[in-house]
Amino acid sequence: MARQENDGKSIIVFSGDLDKAMAAFIIATGAAAMGSEVTMFFTFWGLNVLRKSGPVAVSKPLLDRVFGWMMPKGPDRLGLSKMNMGGAGAGMMRFIMRKKNVMPLRKLIDEARDLGVRMIACTMSMDVMGLKQEELIDGLEFAGVASYLETAEKCGVNLFI
Amino acid sequence: MARQENDGKSIIVFSGDLDKAMAAFIIATGAAAMGSEVTMFFTFWGLNVLRKSGPVAVSKPLLDRVFGWMMPKGPDRLGLSKMNMGGAGAGMMRFIMRKKNVMPLRKLIDEARDLGVRMIACTMSMDVMGLKQEELIDGLEFAGVASYLETAEKCGVNLFI
Amino acid sequence: MARQENDGKSIIVFSGDLDKAMAAFIIATGAAAMGSEVTMFFTFWGLNVLRKSGPVAVSKPLLDRVFGWMMPKGPDRLGLSKMNMGGAGAGMMRFIMRKKNVMPLRKLIDEARDLGVRMIACTMSMDVMGLKQEELIDGLEFAGVASYLETAEKCGVNLFI
Repeated sequence: MARQENDGKSIIVFSGDLDKAMAAFIIATGAAAMGSEVTMFFTFWGLNVLRKSGPVAVSKPLLDRVFGWMMPKGPDRLGLSKMNMGGAGAGMMRFIMRKKNVMPLRKLIDEARDLGVRMIACTMSMDVMGLKQEELIDGLEFAGVASYLETAEKCGVNLFI
Repeated sequence: MARQENDGKSIIVFSGDLDKAMAAFIIATGAAAMGSEVTMFFTFWGLNVLRKSGPVAVSKPLLDRVFGWMMPKGPDRLGLSKMNMGGAGAGMMRFIMRKKNVMPLRKLIDEARDLGVRMIACTMSMDVMGLKQEELIDGLEFAGVASYLETAEKCGVNLFI
Repeated sequence: MARQENDGKSIIVFSGDLDKAMAAFIIATGAAAMGSEVTMFFTFWGLNVLRKSGPVAVSKPLLDRVFGWMMPKGPDRLGLSKMNMGGAGAGMMRFIMRKKNVMPLRKLIDEARDLGVRMIACTMSMDVMGLKQEELIDGLEFAGVASYLETAEKCGVNLFI
């Protein structure tokens, strides 16, 4: 398919909530399936979406370690932005989505990768949150805000989620 | 008024908070009054903004029914994204806005419709939240993410609220 | 540097959370440093980012006064959007950022001003929140949604934070 200029989409994923991450990936995979170049830039809480769920052996300072314990590890642990009720709301939402055949977040992430969506982890946020590359899923790029801006300038649709 | 290309505006209304919905409609009606084509795409919690306030006789499964009970029914029931304090904050905000002659959300929605703002309810979210067309206000379109993307590509300003 | 058309960036700062305000200013100063014209439009809770921290002698009605007491006064008092834990989370985040040499929000605001970022305070929101011009930091413009829309139409990247 011939690509128009400004056809690209960029999405900053700042939020680490299940519902907002779902929205981001539904838009991203939808656009990629329609032939657009899509770039997702994960920053702050959004990095939690990309964390591996299992334990990863990394050596890091206590403060980073504590921070890591407090934050959810990957798509299956994220809460809702509203009505989370200590995780019960998120559990209910996951149950409903499964019943209604909505693709779970974990699969949407795989789908995004298969469709060639670029996923960039913000290195400054990784440093602040004490997250190392090996704690995040495979297939990511690592870059900063300048890289985001260069991409966004070439995109016709830019969202902050 | 002659329209430039890329003159359109699109707004994804993901949030169902009073303050964020107000912001979305103030931008939408402002842009429409200035001659832009404006499309609002309501998804997830944002669908609550469009709910009718009265009871609607619909037949649906228990789970959908429970979910419906838990979510606010329309603009007069929405809470604030901050300092909601179980609804007291939202009440205070409504009182202040009335005193300062800010148009209430319910009227902003009417105004948007009068100005020809397109309002699209996300069908996938409606399915997840168990909301039927007759539970939402009149004058809506019903479509999915592909429809949003087609519109956003033609718009110069695209926001996610 | 020659500027392309649509090179500008606009950011609506709706949120008054430390983490989201940081994100807004990191993007704004990054873009300005790369030669873009950047406009930030502060509305609703976002106005709290611009409040002076000290007491300001203004005469205003009790309701406005109470509202003013309840809202954080400037960048050093903002909370986090997640894990704030009554301010403990925000304190921890400030401590971590200092340790990792991330520029604090107060300095990012100064930097934005030095780089020529336009900062507009939404006059309608100021009225609702009972904030007077002398309660906000220097160097701001004061305008409404029409002014935002005029700017956004000339920008290639528009975000709502």
